[in-house]
Amino acid sequence: MSNGVPDTMLAVVKPTAAAGAEIREVKVPSYGPSDVLVRVKAASICGTDLHIYQWDRWAQSRIHPPLIPGHEFCGDVAAFGKNVTSVKEGDFVSAEMHVACGKCLLCRTGEAHICQDVKIIGVDADGAFAEYVVIPESNIWKLDPSIPVEYGSILDPLGNAVHTVLAGEVAGRTIAITGCGPIGLFAIAVARAVGASQVFAIEINEHRRAVAKKMKADFVLDPSKEDVVAKIMEETGGVGVDAVLEMAGHPDSIRTAFDIVRRGGRISLLGLTSKPISLNFSEDIIFKGIIVQGINGRRMYQTWYQMTALLKAGKLDLHPVITDRIAMKDFSKAMDRLKTGEASKILVYPNSTH
Amino acid sequence: MSNGVPDTMLAVVKPTAAAGAEIREVKVPSYGPSDVLVRVKAASICGTDLHIYQWDRWAQSRIHPPLIPGHEFCGDVAAFGKNVTSVKEGDFVSAEMHVACGKCLLCRTGEAHICQDVKIIGVDADGAFAEYVVIPESNIWKLDPSIPVEYGSILDPLGNAVHTVLAGEVAGRTIAITGCGPIGLFAIAVARAVGASQVFAIEINEHRRAVAKKMKADFVLDPSKEDVVAKIMEETGGVGVDAVLEMAGHPDSIRTAFDIVRRGGRISLLGLTSKPISLNFSEDIIFKGIIVQGINGRRMYQTWYQMTALLKAGKLDLHPVITDRIAMKDFSKAMDRLKTGEASKILVYPNSTH
Amino acid sequence: MSNGVPDTMLAVVKPTAAAGAEIREVKVPSYGPSDVLVRVKAASICGTDLHIYQWDRWAQSRIHPPLIPGHEFCGDVAAFGKNVTSVKEGDFVSAEMHVACGKCLLCRTGEAHICQDVKIIGVDADGAFAEYVVIPESNIWKLDPSIPVEYGSILDPLGNAVHTVLAGEVAGRTIAITGCGPIGLFAIAVARAVGASQVFAIEINEHRRAVAKKMKADFVLDPSKEDVVAKIMEETGGVGVDAVLEMAGHPDSIRTAFDIVRRGGRISLLGLTSKPISLNFSEDIIFKGIIVQGINGRRMYQTWYQMTALLKAGKLDLHPVITDRIAMKDFSKAMDRLKTGEASKILVYPNSTH
Amino acid sequence: MSNGVPDTMLAVVKPTAAAGAEIREVKVPSYGPSDVLVRVKAASICGTDLHIYQWDRWAQSRIHPPLIPGHEFCGDVAAFGKNVTSVKEGDFVSAEMHVACGKCLLCRTGEAHICQDVKIIGVDADGAFAEYVVIPESNIWKLDPSIPVEYGSILDPLGNAVHTVLAGEVAGRTIAITGCGPIGLFAIAVARAVGASQVFAIEINEHRRAVAKKMKADFVLDPSKEDVVAKIMEETGGVGVDAVLEMAGHPDSIRTAFDIVRRGGRISLLGLTSKPISLNFSEDIIFKGIIVQGINGRRMYQTWYQMTALLKAGKLDLHPVITDRIAMKDFSKAMDRLKTGEASKILVYPNSTH
Repeated sequence: MSNGVPDTMLAVVKPTAAAGAEIREVKVPSYGPSDVLVRVKAASICGTDLHIYQWDRWAQSRIHPPLIPGHEFCGDVAAFGKNVTSVKEGDFVSAEMHVACGKCLLCRTGEAHICQDVKIIGVDADGAFAEYVVIPESNIWKLDPSIPVEYGSILDPLGNAVHTVLAGEVAGRTIAITGCGPIGLFAIAVARAVGASQVFAIEINEHRRAVAKKMKADFVLDPSKEDVVAKIMEETGGVGVDAVLEMAGHPDSIRTAFDIVRRGGRISLLGLTSKPISLNFSEDIIFKGIIVQGINGRRMYQTWYQMTALLKAGKLDLHPVITDRIAMKDFSKAMDRLKTGEASKILVYPNSTH
Repeated sequence: MSNGVPDTMLAVVKPTAAAGAEIREVKVPSYGPSDVLVRVKAASICGTDLHIYQWDRWAQSRIHPPLIPGHEFCGDVAAFGKNVTSVKEGDFVSAEMHVACGKCLLCRTGEAHICQDVKIIGVDADGAFAEYVVIPESNIWKLDPSIPVEYGSILDPLGNAVHTVLAGEVAGRTIAITGCGPIGLFAIAVARAVGASQVFAIEINEHRRAVAKKMKADFVLDPSKEDVVAKIMEETGGVGVDAVLEMAGHPDSIRTAFDIVRRGGRISLLGLTSKPISLNFSEDIIFKGIIVQGINGRRMYQTWYQMTALLKAGKLDLHPVITDRIAMKDFSKAMDRLKTGEASKILVYPNSTH
Repeated sequence: MSNGVPDTMLAVVKPTAAAGAEIREVKVPSYGPSDVLVRVKAASICGTDLHIYQWDRWAQSRIHPPLIPGHEFCGDVAAFGKNVTSVKEGDFVSAEMHVACGKCLLCRTGEAHICQDVKIIGVDADGAFAEYVVIPESNIWKLDPSIPVEYGSILDPLGNAVHTVLAGEVAGRTIAITGCGPIGLFAIAVARAVGASQVFAIEINEHRRAVAKKMKADFVLDPSKEDVVAKIMEETGGVGVDAVLEMAGHPDSIRTAFDIVRRGGRISLLGLTSKPISLNFSEDIIFKGIIVQGINGRRMYQTWYQMTALLKAGKLDLHPVITDRIAMKDFSKAMDRLKTGEASKILVYPNSTH
Repeated sequence: MSNGVPDTMLAVVKPTAAAGAEIREVKVPSYGPSDVLVRVKAASICGTDLHIYQWDRWAQSRIHPPLIPGHEFCGDVAAFGKNVTSVKEGDFVSAEMHVACGKCLLCRTGEAHICQDVKIIGVDADGAFAEYVVIPESNIWKLDPSIPVEYGSILDPLGNAVHTVLAGEVAGRTIAITGCGPIGLFAIAVARAVGASQVFAIEINEHRRAVAKKMKADFVLDPSKEDVVAKIMEETGGVGVDAVLEMAGHPDSIRTAFDIVRRGGRISLLGLTSKPISLNFSEDIIFKGIIVQGINGRRMYQTWYQMTALLKAGKLDLHPVITDRIAMKDFSKAMDRLKTGEASKILVYPNSTH
């Protein structure tokens, strides 16, 4: 291969339909006329990657091994197909890993993030836990060189946070975030950066609460020890919060969301849950006149513009969320760290000399 | 009393905390400096009135007898207090019967329809099943004389329909209405008038389906006999409908709403239900990226402007919904008719010579 | 060429940088791997085509002969490139002729209709006044076979009208349309179909006013004979109209637009003008708190969905606007007809046996 | 008068239809059953007050002496009428001085800030340059005691800024502000607080530019010395800014606004101008697909909620704008200061011992 691109590379490979993953030497992927080959500088680990690693029920139904996982990353353009015009070799880039079909109603009306025929690189096709990854030009996102590599690699979950926060009005509003995994933690920073007047972070895990404090949430509440509803009602003059960003996906936190949102407020649901949730529609939704919205992915590419503009302007300090940095060869150790609940975002460096 | 207003009048009175109601001669109510006394030309019966009549659990918790019920009506201005400037004697009027507090966050930001301290005339204070009713000037709605009395008396439920239909985009969109009580039936007419491309009406009751056909729904579906989801998917090219207006409040129809709404669509909930509803948030809301909104009352007074403009322009034919007309003295018979399920909207004429 | 596609075809050709055009036999255009070759059933003439024909200043600065003009049409798929998946031979199609770059901020945030690098087929590349035309698959719009060919050929200007009307709220609102060229006439039908309560059409040309009446505008006003402002104020209770759709591009009609719009209303500007317009910003815009918006093209592809849904549902009767039908060989006669001001939309049939 | 309220007070009085004003002892104003009497702690001076003082053409047409001017202030509740329920003696308050009619279309649809029959306290009725001022309860705005008196007195112009900034999207967007009078300066702080990624301040006056730098605009540009359009195009990658907040009301700055706004962007017009402005509608508005909106007053009371939430949360540092503090007896000196162009916001203390 030209451009100093080698023939083989190291990658995290899920070889078979079973738990675990291996570091393997594989061929550097080939790219088509409209594709970009990116040399990965850093990738980061999502809960989805743990599902794939552990081979849970969802993974069994969705993943077709062998697969290189990884859908959060940044890197430099190493090569590209003949139709590509928007990047040149060496450009610093990340990518939207949801590859939408481009032809359905959703794609053709600005809602590509909920395209029914989406393919996710790192889930449905080989991803970024590797020295190189192939991305269609349409999904490449050029980054300003001033943006740190660490931030470049976490744009996927940061984009979830930006999408959720900005799915309604925030300026001068009170916001509660239920669940402080990485996306919830990012959402604290985003909500503050765009003028939320009060940010309540609700989280049962001690490590995550500690990070939420570093992210400067105005209130960090532990529902296992405090009456969260009472506290929020007290702080909001009995009104409740203008918006709840639900990022835990747990029945208890969802119940709390409906209890703390004010009349006419919004609940933005991002946290996934496989359990059925029971609501009293009259009391919980209708009389209060609230809006409940499902949030998925990142708006293509509105969210990317907003997110990188905020980053470039220095409006977001995300460092407390990045708790671990590992060489790719130690991928399994990262999985173990994640399981402890004491890591938030873990960065993976494919170049093992890191 | 001046202005030819008599001292006493006939009214439907709920005298005690028990089932039933009586026609009684009572004092014509007195009015304050900012109030308007209206001589009722026609009133109409809402499901709420049946709850009050039957003295069900909701009624027991909310109603404080003695009470004159009735919150849908129109009439002529008979007299008014000294601060009133916007009407004169003889003006044809209806009224928004939700009297909002005017001082809370909701009232001060254009959301008075979900004011927490609302009082409803006909529920919390004496209403319109009477020869005269008192309304604060702020809640009076002047009607163009060209609007028929029959339409003037049903603006409250028609406003529910207008509010629900116009709570999202409709022009060139497909709309499903689950539940064809009077509000659902009105919603068919409104959706058609504002450019819905297809209107699906879903209703289990035969009488109501017959009226839905007269209202010119494009499809009238019986979920007890047809596979409603399959039919709607077929007619929408497998996409689902752009919006569902849920007006039945039944767990089955709510389930259907979530099954037929398209990705990125909206579900507007108006139908009340006391039963808990169980949802799979991931599948039902998040992956589909839908919006679920609670709808309550009528926007003050956006809905009233839209509604009366549509009526005055002749865009709405609502006659099929008005199935019964009775003299007020026969109020109990109207209650019996309503229980049969074979009446839609029943008009009540306080003037017994009707 | 395969598929029964001949090697040559007849087309309207602008051969040189001068007034006029010719019917010539030219090669059927070749198509790339992502292109669709369409056999034109009907095309229609836009004012832009007259500018090109007459070779005015705008045409001199924009057009590079030789060129086949024509950007309104429908036809059947005759052949397509190997990457094309969304159509098959014989499909009935039209197309969005604005080919956006797909890579700029506007294109990537749902605003492709104002892409800075747009190319227009029929203006910047060979168009549809020909037996065949080449369209990129991305811009093809499949039509339901139930849509008449006549309507299929006018979707470009109808889309302008739909885009303009739906650029703000219409249901239950009063709308004024200044200028009743084809787009203004279409806008009357669209505004009515989506629930405008009153439609005022303002036009100085007698023929156009006659068509506006056939389109069922509630009021058709002649500013050369009537005090349009006074009349509209009278009919709107002294308030003014909720929205003005400015489609004349004349200083007088623009002045009228600002005079008749109500406080808080909108003015949607579509009509182009090369003359500077003078406004008193304080009185005309700021004190009234109005919104003035520039409207361009059709939203890709929201407008197309809305437009074809309305057509398929039979909500739009556009026949009065189609005043002339000619064989392509008589193109110059069509130009003469257009200049008289007595033709609205002229349909052109490339198949001379029409 | 009760409550320790004296019978007379000192006030700035415009006694006759001529230039100037005097400090006079006048009666403390009487209040009606729905009014609140406020003891003024601080008031501030608006450009409008200078127009009244200088008795320019606008003042001659609008003002009916004798008048106490002053419409920016805060103070403590001294007394109130019998119908008042939302405040008690000693409450710290400010007020919306636009008293809307409450009965027109605008007032009844959430647009009271553009009510056609508005009366402005301090312009159409006696205002706040006095020891006491009377305000209808509906217009009183209770302030959290933690908000400094200096900020409490400038909520009227701060509200103009908040209204203008939040009239469109700001988070992650580039904003240009043309004109750095007090409202423009406040807008810098607000835009930054709600997440603008870049704020360009454009101002010809040296003092104002110096304050704009203290307000932390990212770029402070002098159009008399720099090519503002070229600079902004360079900094925005040739795109232009997402939004322009026009606060100068000068033909040159308005021209600049149209030159620097990006395609699809917005121009929010607040700065008043009596001069006609000439535009090329096709180039300036239509092809670019922009939105131009007139901004007036403050949204009642959305803006007030947002503004006081931002203040209470400590998101706004406004001190650099407050350049002068004077005792009310020195009102004429304040007028002189204002004329120099070297004062931004001047605070007036009715209690002369300040």
